[in-house]
Amino acid sequence: MAKKKLKLRIIPLGGLGEVGKNMLVIEYGRDIVVIDAGLMFPEEEMLGIDLVLPDFTYLRKNKDRILAVVITHGHEDHTGALPYFLKEINVPVYGTKLTLGLIKVKLKEHHVKWIKLREIKAGQEVSLGPFDLKFIQVAHSIPDGVGIIIRTPLGIVVHSGDFKLDQTPVDGRVTDFREFAAIGEDKVLALLSDSTNAETPGFTLPEKSVGDKLDEIFKKAKGRIIVASFASHIHRIQQIIDVTCNNDRKMVICGRSMVENVEIARDFGRLHIPDGLLVNVRGIESLPLPKLVVLSTGSQGEPLSALSKMASHDHRWIQIQPGDTVIISAAAVPGNETAVNRTINQLFRRGANVFYESISGVHVSGHAAREELKLMINLVRPRYFIPIHGEYRHLEHHADLAEELGIPRKNIFVLENGDIIEFNKTGARVKNRVTAGTIFVDGLGVGDIGDVVLRDRHQLSRDGIFIVVVTIDQHSGDVIAGPDIISRGFVYMKEAGELMDEAKEKVREYLQESAKEHVTDWSVLRNHVRDVMSKFLYEKTKRRPMIMPIIMEV
Amino acid sequence: MAKKKLKLRIIPLGGLGEVGKNMLVIEYGRDIVVIDAGLMFPEEEMLGIDLVLPDFTYLRKNKDRILAVVITHGHEDHTGALPYFLKEINVPVYGTKLTLGLIKVKLKEHHVKWIKLREIKAGQEVSLGPFDLKFIQVAHSIPDGVGIIIRTPLGIVVHSGDFKLDQTPVDGRVTDFREFAAIGEDKVLALLSDSTNAETPGFTLPEKSVGDKLDEIFKKAKGRIIVASFASHIHRIQQIIDVTCNNDRKMVICGRSMVENVEIARDFGRLHIPDGLLVNVRGIESLPLPKLVVLSTGSQGEPLSALSKMASHDHRWIQIQPGDTVIISAAAVPGNETAVNRTINQLFRRGANVFYESISGVHVSGHAAREELKLMINLVRPRYFIPIHGEYRHLEHHADLAEELGIPRKNIFVLENGDIIEFNKTGARVKNRVTAGTIFVDGLGVGDIGDVVLRDRHQLSRDGIFIVVVTIDQHSGDVIAGPDIISRGFVYMKEAGELMDEAKEKVREYLQESAKEHVTDWSVLRNHVRDVMSKFLYEKTKRRPMIMPIIMEV
Repeated sequence: MAKKKLKLRIIPLGGLGEVGKNMLVIEYGRDIVVIDAGLMFPEEEMLGIDLVLPDFTYLRKNKDRILAVVITHGHEDHTGALPYFLKEINVPVYGTKLTLGLIKVKLKEHHVKWIKLREIKAGQEVSLGPFDLKFIQVAHSIPDGVGIIIRTPLGIVVHSGDFKLDQTPVDGRVTDFREFAAIGEDKVLALLSDSTNAETPGFTLPEKSVGDKLDEIFKKAKGRIIVASFASHIHRIQQIIDVTCNNDRKMVICGRSMVENVEIARDFGRLHIPDGLLVNVRGIESLPLPKLVVLSTGSQGEPLSALSKMASHDHRWIQIQPGDTVIISAAAVPGNETAVNRTINQLFRRGANVFYESISGVHVSGHAAREELKLMINLVRPRYFIPIHGEYRHLEHHADLAEELGIPRKNIFVLENGDIIEFNKTGARVKNRVTAGTIFVDGLGVGDIGDVVLRDRHQLSRDGIFIVVVTIDQHSGDVIAGPDIISRGFVYMKEAGELMDEAKEKVREYLQESAKEHVTDWSVLRNHVRDVMSKFLYEKTKRRPMIMPIIMEV
Repeated sequence: MAKKKLKLRIIPLGGLGEVGKNMLVIEYGRDIVVIDAGLMFPEEEMLGIDLVLPDFTYLRKNKDRILAVVITHGHEDHTGALPYFLKEINVPVYGTKLTLGLIKVKLKEHHVKWIKLREIKAGQEVSLGPFDLKFIQVAHSIPDGVGIIIRTPLGIVVHSGDFKLDQTPVDGRVTDFREFAAIGEDKVLALLSDSTNAETPGFTLPEKSVGDKLDEIFKKAKGRIIVASFASHIHRIQQIIDVTCNNDRKMVICGRSMVENVEIARDFGRLHIPDGLLVNVRGIESLPLPKLVVLSTGSQGEPLSALSKMASHDHRWIQIQPGDTVIISAAAVPGNETAVNRTINQLFRRGANVFYESISGVHVSGHAAREELKLMINLVRPRYFIPIHGEYRHLEHHADLAEELGIPRKNIFVLENGDIIEFNKTGARVKNRVTAGTIFVDGLGVGDIGDVVLRDRHQLSRDGIFIVVVTIDQHSGDVIAGPDIISRGFVYMKEAGELMDEAKEKVREYLQESAKEHVTDWSVLRNHVRDVMSKFLYEKTKRRPMIMPIIMEV
């Protein structure tokens, strides 16, 4: 029997055409390695949804072919789907120390206990079936991030991870551009590179520039200082700690995820906190305000976060007051602009002096901007280029950059989630698709909410619901109770008595006529009541509530 | 009888602490003049709301004291509440030619016919009771804007209108800084100035810079060009027309408001369109794509706008295709970021080459940036300064600017809607408040939607509704029909049969027990059913739908 020529396939299952839920499949013949398993936070029109996961039907169907999941770094958009994935598919997980530390907390919360976690280090090589992986240190807005060089029988695939150049990172761990340069000598088949900032000109500023800016603000602040940031941004937290020390202040940490992440990072030697710096929130009354720094969650304006509570005076220990300096050391993630804006306004109303990204350098991105992206492409010099991690506009702009640098357009693939790109000895082509998309998590339900339920929520959210209940004698068709009308979210019931009376009268008339005409099909009756009411209410109010006729037979 | 000392009072009813629904009251003794009557578009959490108006209860109560409404320019956030206001309060409206032209269209739509419209020109003076008004030409993103100098018995009040410096405006009508400088010699009592861009450093670029950029893009475009902008941005439209001519293309206009505004502006001599430039959308098939420019609505990503329909291939005449160049010549108004972003991504997916604010200079603001705001303050040199038109953060930053320029902090008033600032011979102070806030327009209803209805819509939007219906014998308490369960927006009913059966069983059990115990108070029964179901459903799903027990007695 002739040996079948095996093919290399790359299939993004998430993170392309969106920011979040990154997940990528690499397979050679039967063997599959998965890179990242992230979640996304719901967009505003995903009403009531808690989390969004990639649809990994393809992996569920090919469970037994999966060798491992490799995680590039500990951000939720790269790790958040893991508990859901591992509940169904028990494979080893590879990641660096801090990455695994953060994953462990997640798995524990989800009572997932049986998983093999395999710690790797930047620079280390790991063989997984036909794949030889080498992990490359990259600087990003969380420590311990890696890119991956994957040697396959058909050539080398380079995955950038999430990276920036940052030549002076806070922890000294620069992106290992020498490794990327070295691999560029070896005829790389394909580069997959982070597109998040493909629209941002120039270079992303070094993380340390934020520290300098914070120090400047700290030196001028006369009262208490509150700094909100991402709980996972350990470099930022380190800088806030350092500035706190240098300015002879003490620190209180607020917000569950902030407390948790600081603990993990400290345990793993990724965060250095001088003894005596931290004070308990219960002890702050004894500290003079000019000696205090509060490190807090809430940089995204989340209504239940510590910062929001401080701003609305719902926080048990800390209320924003005139003289406070508040620093929001983060950017608003797309979709959160309104919430962040509301928080900023509320802080100003409380009399605080507020610093935020758009007016001061208190945040820089963790992603490479255009010149850095060019550097990556120029160093790796791949035959094929596949932009990953970004909305469609970012992928397109990243593709344009690659073309500018001399990669022929036909060798650049702007893919969507689910697209299969297949490599053989002669070349690459996009071939078919696998199932891909979004799985909604709502409460305990994973994947049970679909278009029908969301459409109903949309209609309910716009004009509410209008319920008509009537009890009817099943033999005669006579109305023996009702019609009663109840509405919610439609009009203010207490002031709409007249409208409701008129509506009842309409229904009663219609039912009497139907009884006369011996209409006995209740679904017909229901549909007619719906039509009659819909028309009547739209004429009266120009609103379209969901109309629910309920007919009980006795 | 001693003559009572009359006081001057300024009361903002809208536009402070928000962007939109600008409305300001100036009164001396009994006499009131209202400046602007704008609307605001609903924020995302105002579910199902169409428009937001300022609450003008105060003016309703003081109807007979109002001399006039003066409108500074024709933008909806300065004119949009007029029809609603004028339906209740019949007073003359003052405005410039184009402003009144746009207002007439609005009034006609609302069937408001009896209003006296008084046309004024920049430079003109008008006496209204104790007030002498002089209108000052200002450059803004709509032609014919004015600021106002108001001479009152207690001093001069200057209202900036919405302005930018722009030394080379498209229509040649520069902001009349000489007038503002001249009045600065006269001991101005108070300056009220536009704060929209108080966080933007430097100077706002001139409008003409957009024309240059557009020309550059037009010259490179090989296929059809689609430009979306604000329908009221006549200067921008003029530039798009000019660039279309210069590049030897024809123009099609799409979108009702764009067609309407172009017509009005042309009629009033504010827009110059060469003969033969415009072609009808029905005629475009005969034109080669490289000869065509489409001027369209949809710059805010509105789902029903012409551009969105072109992008989703729902438009009758024009579908976006590879080779098209699309220019979104506008900024996303806060709150619209997600919608605009979605449109941009969709356009890229269709293969278009897309230009937008963040990556190219295809839009500039119509509002003064920090250095221009300083210039206004330095020229007018007021005793008191009141920042207007902006969110609280903008007002605060504008106040800081004024302080930097030497106005003592105690003479700077950061007000909220409804605050009364009162001037007498010796000084100014904030004194009490009048009713102010938001009135929601939803369909035909104005002001009937309040917190209760919105709260219900929120709950419905998150987890839907769960209805339990049961018919009971009023004497025995026995269940004679049901319980039936209907839900919408909660779970996918077709796959939730088991859950529903269990829920029914729970209700049945509870009702049987109640019957045994002769519970006859139906409101008690209803509340208990609600509690039982709420607990049950939360345990099973971790969701909290609105629960509606309906008990029919026969």
